[in-house]
Amino acid sequence: MEKNTQEATPPTTTAGKIIRCKAAICRNPGEALVVEEIEVEPPKAWEVRLKILCTSLCHSDVTFWKMKPGAVSAFPRILGHEAVGVVESVGEKVEGWREGERALPVFAPDCEDCRDCRSAKSNMCASFGRRGMVGFGMLRDGTSRFRDGSTGEVLHHFLGVSSFSEYTVVDVVNLVKIGVDIPVDKACLLSCGVSTGVGAAWKAAEVEEGSTVAIFGLGAVGLAVAEGARMRGASKIIGVDLNADKFELGKQFGLTDFINPTTIGDKRVSEVIKEMTDGGADYCFECIGLASLMAEAFSSSREGWGKTVIVGIEMHGSPLVVSPYEIIRGRSICGTYFGGLKPKTHISLLAKKYLDKELNLDPFITHEVGLKDINRAFELLAEGQSLRCLIWMDGCK
Amino acid sequence: MEKNTQEATPPTTTAGKIIRCKAAICRNPGEALVVEEIEVEPPKAWEVRLKILCTSLCHSDVTFWKMKPGAVSAFPRILGHEAVGVVESVGEKVEGWREGERALPVFAPDCEDCRDCRSAKSNMCASFGRRGMVGFGMLRDGTSRFRDGSTGEVLHHFLGVSSFSEYTVVDVVNLVKIGVDIPVDKACLLSCGVSTGVGAAWKAAEVEEGSTVAIFGLGAVGLAVAEGARMRGASKIIGVDLNADKFELGKQFGLTDFINPTTIGDKRVSEVIKEMTDGGADYCFECIGLASLMAEAFSSSREGWGKTVIVGIEMHGSPLVVSPYEIIRGRSICGTYFGGLKPKTHISLLAKKYLDKELNLDPFITHEVGLKDINRAFELLAEGQSLRCLIWMDGCK
Repeated sequence: MEKNTQEATPPTTTAGKIIRCKAAICRNPGEALVVEEIEVEPPKAWEVRLKILCTSLCHSDVTFWKMKPGAVSAFPRILGHEAVGVVESVGEKVEGWREGERALPVFAPDCEDCRDCRSAKSNMCASFGRRGMVGFGMLRDGTSRFRDGSTGEVLHHFLGVSSFSEYTVVDVVNLVKIGVDIPVDKACLLSCGVSTGVGAAWKAAEVEEGSTVAIFGLGAVGLAVAEGARMRGASKIIGVDLNADKFELGKQFGLTDFINPTTIGDKRVSEVIKEMTDGGADYCFECIGLASLMAEAFSSSREGWGKTVIVGIEMHGSPLVVSPYEIIRGRSICGTYFGGLKPKTHISLLAKKYLDKELNLDPFITHEVGLKDINRAFELLAEGQSLRCLIWMDGCK
Repeated sequence: MEKNTQEATPPTTTAGKIIRCKAAICRNPGEALVVEEIEVEPPKAWEVRLKILCTSLCHSDVTFWKMKPGAVSAFPRILGHEAVGVVESVGEKVEGWREGERALPVFAPDCEDCRDCRSAKSNMCASFGRRGMVGFGMLRDGTSRFRDGSTGEVLHHFLGVSSFSEYTVVDVVNLVKIGVDIPVDKACLLSCGVSTGVGAAWKAAEVEEGSTVAIFGLGAVGLAVAEGARMRGASKIIGVDLNADKFELGKQFGLTDFINPTTIGDKRVSEVIKEMTDGGADYCFECIGLASLMAEAFSSSREGWGKTVIVGIEMHGSPLVVSPYEIIRGRSICGTYFGGLKPKTHISLLAKKYLDKELNLDPFITHEVGLKDINRAFELLAEGQSLRCLIWMDGCK
């Protein structure tokens, strides 16, 4: 990927006007996306219109793609929430952003002003945090900037990002600066999944040098946890996955040991981990979203100080069940959202670590397609073939 | 209570001999204790024989008193694990202890040598931690130092302490030095319950200045959590208890607010706490041992950084059930054993805080009896009348 030249261009001539562009629309749950023309309105107050350079497919896109309409799901919709773009124009009241700047849209808001955003202990923006997650599909003022190019039908936003479009409109609380020195495709990874995993090891768990780590589920997020644990100096990083190929792949991210639950006979995974770690791992991470696996991760943690970090979003609505007798002996469980990172503070630190060759990002990109082939990205993820499939806006690559 | 004068006496003449003394024996679960003569053998290697000055009744004594024989319960037994005593004699290999020194026997071992005891992160002694809790009822070498004075029958130890006796034998890992400047009765409190509560706020939760705290269950441990939170500078300390009298009592320990679950109509306690704390308490403590209350405490904790500390030992074997969606939004749960305190390091710090008038201990002592009336202490606790009932060895007071 060449450095994008947009940064040097003068103010756009599209500012203040509706832009007609291509987007991948999801009309109904589980249906193939259709790449068609849409209209993108100019940004309103506190909003920025972005030209998306590239986006990538994350499991949460698939989750919402399949989800029947309800409290957090609405159609037609423009999915996508892991991306990098360039500011095309800014709305009223927007400060600190100008046309041509490179930006990461991030689903986790960071208003920098509420009690949580001002506290070092939280990254759950109290003012805007609920909005993105519940996914009403609209921006701050309750309306959409997207319309179907032929019918004029309103299209729903997604997690405040909607990056499966050549242009999108994002609230300033969902926008993070990113330098042009980090390649676009690597920057894209920092917008969601990889940051979540690295952050879980770094900020949520605070993995210590020489410690032992067990990771349940080696998708991109789980492997990013391994990478984060490696960066923090963990001495043993055990991956747990049904796909044995993940061990070789994971070694690039510091994985030292591997457990395939189907090949350990009658033993529980937690028993094997306890044997490998002299009583239990110091840090355990659940990166799938299954309550049963969360409980197993917890049981794999060491008495005295074992910490279990829930990274996956439970996919069946099942409760998390643990033994009070196991927790009372010095164990803990915490949950993490975007890896405990504050987007506007920590993403640039990760970008610097990449440029300093401390953070390994390259192997996460396993596939690349153009926007017109976006459904192929869904297939690759469903087949377990891809970690991250980049989707380049047509003409960007 | 006068200062005990044992400290100045020369080496005892009983060293190396069997001591015949009085003890309260529990012959069968739930039966009144009988105060009779027993024989206490001299301490073996790594053991110290203590003359108990006073002991007090803790809920765990009652739990084990009622418990049918099984993996952790055995009869006849000498209960009691919250006490203060004086070293009568020491066994072989005992270093750093001499006759006449004042000592707290503590159920939580602290060998100062294993990986946990050497780590600042844990107080779960890896070498001896399981032994006391599972309560096999014997000392390190698997035998008892107690025999029935008339039948010669072996009597079981309890949690490595067995303080309902004029003399007991304790492993050095269960023995903590305590100065003679703190009165015996106040020192006694630091041996278990009060330290557990104060430690939960101090070490396990690390309550911060200005924070909000909710405490479920205002027995001695819950009130000690309040006292610990007060010492740490919490701005709002909410107590939850079915007994409305506990509010006035709790004010002495910093309680600022009170919820009686029976007088809040259809509202859940967690709803009321969320209203009182602008979204949830920073720190929640469960001090009863009911899984349902643990879940309610968790639901009362704030998104972003809310921390729930499990202090109570679940009394019905019920699992702890929480919502993965609630935990993922930045909440955490941890368990604590002896309040996260390392006995040999932290008890003397609490004693100093008492002497410096920073830690309020006096109101915890609500009743006092002699050993012969020990069953009265059980009644007072069962009736909810006492916080701590001191049991003075006959002749000590």
